[in-house]
Amino acid sequence: MAKSWVNSAERIGADLHLELTGGPGGRRAALIRALREAVRDGRLPPGTRLPPYRSLAADLGVARNTVADAYAELVAEGWLTARQGSGTRVAPGRAGQSSRAGERGVVRPARHAGQGPLKGAPRARGPRPPHDLRQGTPDASTFPRAAWGTSYRRALQQAPNEVFGPGDPAGRRELREALTEYLARARGVRTGPERIVVCSGFAHALRLLAASGVLRGPLAVEEYGLGFHRDLLAAAGVRTVPLALDEDGARVAELGRERAVLLTPAHQFPTGGPLHASRRVEVVDRMSARGGLLLEDDYDGEFRYDRRPVGAVQGLAPEHVIYIGSVSKSLSPALRLGWMVLPEGRVADVLAAKGEREAWASVLDQLSLADFLRCGAYDRHVRRMRQRYRGRRDRLVAALAERAPHIGVTGVAAGLHAVLRLPPGTEASAVKAAVWQGVALDGLAAFRHPAARTPPVDGLVVGYATPPEHAYGAAVEALCGVLPPEEG
Amino acid sequence: MAKSWVNSAERIGADLHLELTGGPGGRRAALIRALREAVRDGRLPPGTRLPPYRSLAADLGVARNTVADAYAELVAEGWLTARQGSGTRVAPGRAGQSSRAGERGVVRPARHAGQGPLKGAPRARGPRPPHDLRQGTPDASTFPRAAWGTSYRRALQQAPNEVFGPGDPAGRRELREALTEYLARARGVRTGPERIVVCSGFAHALRLLAASGVLRGPLAVEEYGLGFHRDLLAAAGVRTVPLALDEDGARVAELGRERAVLLTPAHQFPTGGPLHASRRVEVVDRMSARGGLLLEDDYDGEFRYDRRPVGAVQGLAPEHVIYIGSVSKSLSPALRLGWMVLPEGRVADVLAAKGEREAWASVLDQLSLADFLRCGAYDRHVRRMRQRYRGRRDRLVAALAERAPHIGVTGVAAGLHAVLRLPPGTEASAVKAAVWQGVALDGLAAFRHPAARTPPVDGLVVGYATPPEHAYGAAVEALCGVLPPEEG
Repeated sequence: MAKSWVNSAERIGADLHLELTGGPGGRRAALIRALREAVRDGRLPPGTRLPPYRSLAADLGVARNTVADAYAELVAEGWLTARQGSGTRVAPGRAGQSSRAGERGVVRPARHAGQGPLKGAPRARGPRPPHDLRQGTPDASTFPRAAWGTSYRRALQQAPNEVFGPGDPAGRRELREALTEYLARARGVRTGPERIVVCSGFAHALRLLAASGVLRGPLAVEEYGLGFHRDLLAAAGVRTVPLALDEDGARVAELGRERAVLLTPAHQFPTGGPLHASRRVEVVDRMSARGGLLLEDDYDGEFRYDRRPVGAVQGLAPEHVIYIGSVSKSLSPALRLGWMVLPEGRVADVLAAKGEREAWASVLDQLSLADFLRCGAYDRHVRRMRQRYRGRRDRLVAALAERAPHIGVTGVAAGLHAVLRLPPGTEASAVKAAVWQGVALDGLAAFRHPAARTPPVDGLVVGYATPPEHAYGAAVEALCGVLPPEEG
Repeated sequence: MAKSWVNSAERIGADLHLELTGGPGGRRAALIRALREAVRDGRLPPGTRLPPYRSLAADLGVARNTVADAYAELVAEGWLTARQGSGTRVAPGRAGQSSRAGERGVVRPARHAGQGPLKGAPRARGPRPPHDLRQGTPDASTFPRAAWGTSYRRALQQAPNEVFGPGDPAGRRELREALTEYLARARGVRTGPERIVVCSGFAHALRLLAASGVLRGPLAVEEYGLGFHRDLLAAAGVRTVPLALDEDGARVAELGRERAVLLTPAHQFPTGGPLHASRRVEVVDRMSARGGLLLEDDYDGEFRYDRRPVGAVQGLAPEHVIYIGSVSKSLSPALRLGWMVLPEGRVADVLAAKGEREAWASVLDQLSLADFLRCGAYDRHVRRMRQRYRGRRDRLVAALAERAPHIGVTGVAAGLHAVLRLPPGTEASAVKAAVWQGVALDGLAAFRHPAARTPPVDGLVVGYATPPEHAYGAAVEALCGVLPPEEG
C-alpha cells in the first residue's frame, strides 16, 4: 500500500531510469517499449517534460537519432506531445492507465479494441483510437479559449460579493436572463428567467425531473436514442416505452397512455431527421389534452445547415413542454452547464428537488456563460462551428459519393453526426471491420431501445465533429475502407 | 402568460415609470415604496443603473434631496448598491423576489422573519438580514479574485485540447495529484491520485456513496449535525442512527452494530470539539474489526487556531476511512468542488455510480484549483482567512466576556462558528429575540437528530465568518443584546 503514497508529482530530469530490454526491433523499439511502460505505470506522469534527445541518448548509450525516432513514434501514438518551445512531454490522461484500471478492480468494456497500445483502452481514458468518429462531442480543439477567458475574467471582476456565498438553486439570475433572450432569438423558446432552472447538463435535468416527481409513470421515448439516458431513467424508477420512428420522426399518433414523452424534435438522435410540423402540433395537442408533458431534448439545435430553421416545439405550448439544452455540444462538455425551461407550475417541484442551495453548477461558470451570451461571443462561436461542421459534413458526403455511392447518408441537414444506411444484415460486420481498422464509431443497434418492435435498420452513426481538423481527412478515408461493398 | 415573456433584460433610463402614491411619510417614503416595488417585481432587474438624482427628480417633480434620500435608504436596506464611479444600481439577487416566490407557488419557510423588507424573505434569496450570523459560509467578500483569476487563466491557456472533451469521472489527474500532495501535507491524509474522486461538494459525496452501495444498512451519525445531510441520506434510503456526544466528541464506545459511521473528527459540527485521540483510535479499530467504514467529514479542518493541529483520522487507517473535503468553507461554495479519498477497494463502486463521463464538476474549475493548490495560492488564502477568522472569534469572545460573562462559549479552537451555551430552557426565546432584532442564527435544536436520546442542550450556533468585515462589529453588538440575562 505504501507504494501508492509515493509522491506522484515527482518530475524527471536526468534521473529517468529506463531498462532497454531485448526484443524485436532493436534499441529503438526497446526504447519505445520502455517509455510507453513508464508512462503507463505512472512513473512518467502527464505533463512531465522528457529529457532532450542528447542527454537521454548519452545516458542510455544510444544514438541521438534513436531517441528522436522513439519520441516521434510515441507522439504519433498519442503517448507524448511535442510543442514548439515546450519540448516533448507526456500527454495528459495517459499515465497510470493500466495500473489504475487494475487498482479499481474493473476493466471497463472496451469501446475500441484495436492493435498495439490501444488494446482494451477504455473510452475516455486510454489513448484515442487513430480515427475517432464517435458521436457526441464537439471538436475539443476548437474551444474558444480567448473569448471564454475574457468572459470569465469579466465575470470574476464584476461579480458582486454575494456570488461567493451560497448559490440560488435556480441558477444565477444573470444567466437566466441571458438565456431568456438567447433562447427566444435563436430557438423560438418562450420563457422568462423565473421559469429557467440551471443544471449541470441533460443527464442532470433528467435526474431532477425524476426526483421531483414531475415524471410520474412510464415515459415514452423514441425507439432509437441514448441508452445512457434510458438506464439513468430506469435507475430513477422511470420506465421507458419505445415509440416507433419513420421518415417524419416519432410516430406520435401511436403514443400510448403515457403522460410524458421525451423527443429530439429538431434533429432526431441518432437517426437525424426533424420531427414533421404536423407531428409537432399533434404531440403538444395530445400532451395538453391529457395534462401531460413533452420533454424536448434540444441537444444540437444550433447546428442546422439547410435553410429551414427548426425552432423549438416549446414555443407552441410553453405550459406543456419542458425544454432542455446545454453547452455540451455547442461549447464543451467540460463546463457542465445546462438549463431547463419549465412550465410555470413545475418550477417549484424541480427547485425543491434541487435543494436549498446550488449544489451543482459552478456559479462563476454560470456568470461567464451569461457574459459570453450577452457579448455575442456565443453567437460568433456557434457560427464558426456551424461552418466548420458543415464543411466536414460536405467532405464526408462527397467522399462517400465517390468511394461508396451505394451507401445512403441521412440526417445530415443538422447536427454533428450522420447516419450511413447499410444493406440489411451488414451492420455488425461493418462495426467489427471499423474496430480492426482503428475507426471508432457505433452502429445503430447500440442506440436501439431493447423493447423496440419495428424491424431494426442497419446503419453506422458517424460523429464528424470529434476528430481535430488535421485528422479528419484520414478518418473519412479509413471509414470508406470499412464499408460493405455493393451487393450483387 | 404573455406578460412573463416580456424581455426582462430591458434597461431603464429616463423611461422609468414610477407611481408615487399617497401614504404615510410623504413623497420620500412614497418614492422608496415605489422603487422597492419596482425592484421586487422585476421591473428593475439586478444591475440596472438608476437615473441620476437630478433627472429622476425632474421627471417626478420632486426635490433632488428627496431622490438622494430615497436612494440612500434603499442602499442601507440592501435593495440598491452605490459604488464610486458606477452610480446607484439595483443590488444583485433582489429582483423578482416576491413575484418569483409567487409563481413558484411556494413560500419557503422563512429562516429570518424580521420587519420591513425582510419579512418572509427566503434564505438565499431575499435581502440579507441586517446581522447574518448563520453558520456555514465563509465571508463572501474575501474570495481571492485576482489569484483565482490567475490560476484560471493559466489553466485555460495550458490545458491540452482533450480537456474540452468528455471528462474522466474520477476528476482531472492534475487536481488529484495536487490534492494528494496538499492533503498529505496539511491534513495528514495518506492517498494517491488514483484513490481520489472529485465531486461537487459534501452532499454530492454522500449521494454517490449511497448510490454506489458503499453505504449499506444504517449509518451512525453524531446526535448533532446538519439536518440537510440526514434528510439527503434518508431520501437515498440510508437510515441514520444518532450517536451521543460528550466533551470528548462522539461516544464511539456506544456504537451499535452499524457498519458505517459519519463523524466530524477535527471539529464536531456544530458543538465544536475535536474527537479525543483515544476515540479516534477506537473508532477506526471498531470499524476495521467489522469491515466497516468511517466517513470523515473534514469540512473546516484548515481553520484551527490553537497550537494543536488535528490531522485527519484517515491517516490512521486509509483502508477503513472515506475522507471527504471541499473548498466550500476554505474558498467558496460557488465553485462546487469537493473530493473523496477512498479505500482502494471502494474506488470502482463510486466511479461506477458517477457514470461513464464527468457529469458534475466543471473541468476548468478543476484545473484552476490544481494550479491554485500547486502555486501556493491556496495556502496563502487559508493563512489569511485563518488570521481573519481568528480575529473575529477573539472579538466575539471578548464582547461576550464583557457584555454577557454568564454565557459560556465553546468550540472556538477551530472553524468558522462558535456555540454559546445558554441556561436550560432559554434557547427558543433567545432565537426568537434574535429574529426580532434582525440577527439571523440558529439554535442547537435545529441540528439535533430527531431520535437523539441524551437530554437536549440549550445553545446558539454563531457563524462568525458570514458577515463582511465592516458589518461584523454591529452583528456582535446585536447578538449580545438578544442573550438571556443572568439568572438569579
